[in-house]
Amino acid sequence: MFSVTVRDHMMIAHSLRGEVFGPAQRLHGATYVVDATFRRASLDADGIVVDIGRAAQALSAVVGELSYRNLDDDAALAGTNTTTEVLARFVADRLADRVRAGDLGDGARELDGLVVTLRESHVAWASYERSL
Amino acid sequence: MFSVTVRDHMMIAHSLRGEVFGPAQRLHGATYVVDATFRRASLDADGIVVDIGRAAQALSAVVGELSYRNLDDDAALAGTNTTTEVLARFVADRLADRVRAGDLGDGARELDGLVVTLRESHVAWASYERSL
Amino acid sequence: MFSVTVRDHMMIAHSLRGEVFGPAQRLHGATYVVDATFRRASLDADGIVVDIGRAAQALSAVVGELSYRNLDDDAALAGTNTTTEVLARFVADRLADRVRAGDLGDGARELDGLVVTLRESHVAWASYERSL
Amino acid sequence: MFSVTVRDHMMIAHSLRGEVFGPAQRLHGATYVVDATFRRASLDADGIVVDIGRAAQALSAVVGELSYRNLDDDAALAGTNTTTEVLARFVADRLADRVRAGDLGDGARELDGLVVTLRESHVAWASYERSL
Amino acid sequence: MFSVTVRDHMMIAHSLRGEVFGPAQRLHGATYVVDATFRRASLDADGIVVDIGRAAQALSAVVGELSYRNLDDDAALAGTNTTTEVLARFVADRLADRVRAGDLGDGARELDGLVVTLRESHVAWASYERSL
Amino acid sequence: MFSVTVRDHMMIAHSLRGEVFGPAQRLHGATYVVDATFRRASLDADGIVVDIGRAAQALSAVVGELSYRNLDDDAALAGTNTTTEVLARFVADRLADRVRAGDLGDGARELDGLVVTLRESHVAWASYERSL
Repeated sequence: MFSVTVRDHMMIAHSLRGEVFGPAQRLHGATYVVDATFRRASLDADGIVVDIGRAAQALSAVVGELSYRNLDDDAALAGTNTTTEVLARFVADRLADRVRAGDLGDGARELDGLVVTLRESHVAWASYERSL
Repeated sequence: MFSVTVRDHMMIAHSLRGEVFGPAQRLHGATYVVDATFRRASLDADGIVVDIGRAAQALSAVVGELSYRNLDDDAALAGTNTTTEVLARFVADRLADRVRAGDLGDGARELDGLVVTLRESHVAWASYERSL
Repeated sequence: MFSVTVRDHMMIAHSLRGEVFGPAQRLHGATYVVDATFRRASLDADGIVVDIGRAAQALSAVVGELSYRNLDDDAALAGTNTTTEVLARFVADRLADRVRAGDLGDGARELDGLVVTLRESHVAWASYERSL
Repeated sequence: MFSVTVRDHMMIAHSLRGEVFGPAQRLHGATYVVDATFRRASLDADGIVVDIGRAAQALSAVVGELSYRNLDDDAALAGTNTTTEVLARFVADRLADRVRAGDLGDGARELDGLVVTLRESHVAWASYERSL
Repeated sequence: MFSVTVRDHMMIAHSLRGEVFGPAQRLHGATYVVDATFRRASLDADGIVVDIGRAAQALSAVVGELSYRNLDDDAALAGTNTTTEVLARFVADRLADRVRAGDLGDGARELDGLVVTLRESHVAWASYERSL
Repeated sequence: MFSVTVRDHMMIAHSLRGEVFGPAQRLHGATYVVDATFRRASLDADGIVVDIGRAAQALSAVVGELSYRNLDDDAALAGTNTTTEVLARFVADRLADRVRAGDLGDGARELDGLVVTLRESHVAWASYERSL
């Protein structure tokens, strides 16, 4: 199994609902350093998993939709608790949409899966893994 | 599959038994930067894998039992070669005990697995992965 | 010259005033990984720059006052553009207050200076250096 | 499942064939920071996955064959597009040869698998995973 | 004293002339992760050292002139031994030209100095510091 | 001003004397990731600060004298509190001895200074800077 990973980041404000979140129930914010890993059983004719330039552009576009925003006001996330886990899935699902739409090239339709990791600090991060 | 990881560290002395260890047969020591990854197929009602505050506390408690000690004198590890691999399993098993005891909350009983990684330097680390 | 550095972090929401900030004029947020470096020309009788436990506690207390908050609503920062540079100075000045107040021990009054670095992502950070 | 990882690096020149590579079709180069992860279901009698000293030597030998070279002129890679993915597989397969040859010790024949990750920058990396 | 740092990277081929370089006399390559630090005694009216967006663009432009090239064939570097130290100075001097030309904004003319660090691997890097 | 840095590491056991050290008064240990920075105002005829291969060998030799040892039993450190700060100075002074002895080449006698940083965990490190 092969994989290729590209890294980008986003800076957002949000608050979390639920006693379990303690002080994070208040409006605060985070930088998420976002790693998107594309997995594939075999390489294409060029010897790659995916066009890394297009993969980086797709990740940049997805995090760009969330960047410099207060997620509490984002219609696409209304009624959602925007935990790191939930945001990892959100980014992964949006990337999967772009793979299916052909934004990463025709070859990207051969991808087997996707892992998205959001690092919220030097001591905590979350991941979501899905098939494609 | 989702996961959440928290990082902590411990500083210990020990020696290793066996010719394969060369100079590490002498009494020496290590800082282990410890990553504990909690895995779960689906999120709970709050949108999380585990209460990250409790997860961090549990990891801190487990590494705290070993920290600032000479493991050669630790009764819980008597007769054990405290290699990085063995210590990764030890930390993972102690965390699993705490999950079962409810220390990470009732929801943590839905966790599927655990990975513990001990980084002993910038060029070497070991992991142990187990189910829960 | 000797120095000792401790690392902590804070997660905040804020907005920035001024056209130069582009989309960061909107309410958004950041994780700042904060490094506080204490400088001293010679070591004390224990062979240290500063009690590292107390230094870590002081840094934790200072970042704790800002953590999980919307800085736009923070009275202590009213009328201030909370750029990374300004926040680095704010953290450094608060640490200097604590040094002077004796919170880091009597010996800490021999410290010569302080550097605070705030990392806002994997590709950008800011520092402020001051004497003590 | 246990694993042990060792890190080394190599600095090479190469060019890539195919329009998908854009400016990387020109002769350029890369530092690859190389992580080799050895996986094993259970530990040996010494409590280890593999002799970490021998593992590090084997990785050093494999990357040493490529280091400080123009891969476009390397006979072993003739006709190969030396993408990061392809080089990850190349390093993994050479390590597998050494495992089979006994270079990592007799116990290393109990290894279950191998993952090789090549980090080409702070924002991009590729991995190849294989069984042993 | 304040500073702001932005990070980018470049991937190049080159060879070095001189026995001291051993195998690096052969054509090989490197990824340089490049940190550009802008220093200034006091902040401007917006509370910043420099417009970080423009600083990142300037760094990207400077490393873009070298990226995906064989530096042995670069006219601007003819007769130069392109060691990591020399390249750090080259990047710093080009950034200084852009500061003087106003590419980083009028306020950037108040900058006091510049440090450029090129990381060539996880175990080696070089810096060049100059005034502005 | 130019600088070149090389990284290595050492794993040691020790205990610290003094109430300020709390639990670190017990025999424990540490991995120190050691960065040695060589500073010089101008480059030599080859375009370098120092022969990086010899610098790395010198650092490896110095940390090798301490590695895999209990520093409490080390004659060279008898009566010394082996804090991170003290060990940073010890490594720097031993490197300075080697520079003076010509181990880093004749050109290294033009070096202006040396900084040694010992990272004891992901959240704490100490440095010592001296002239040459």
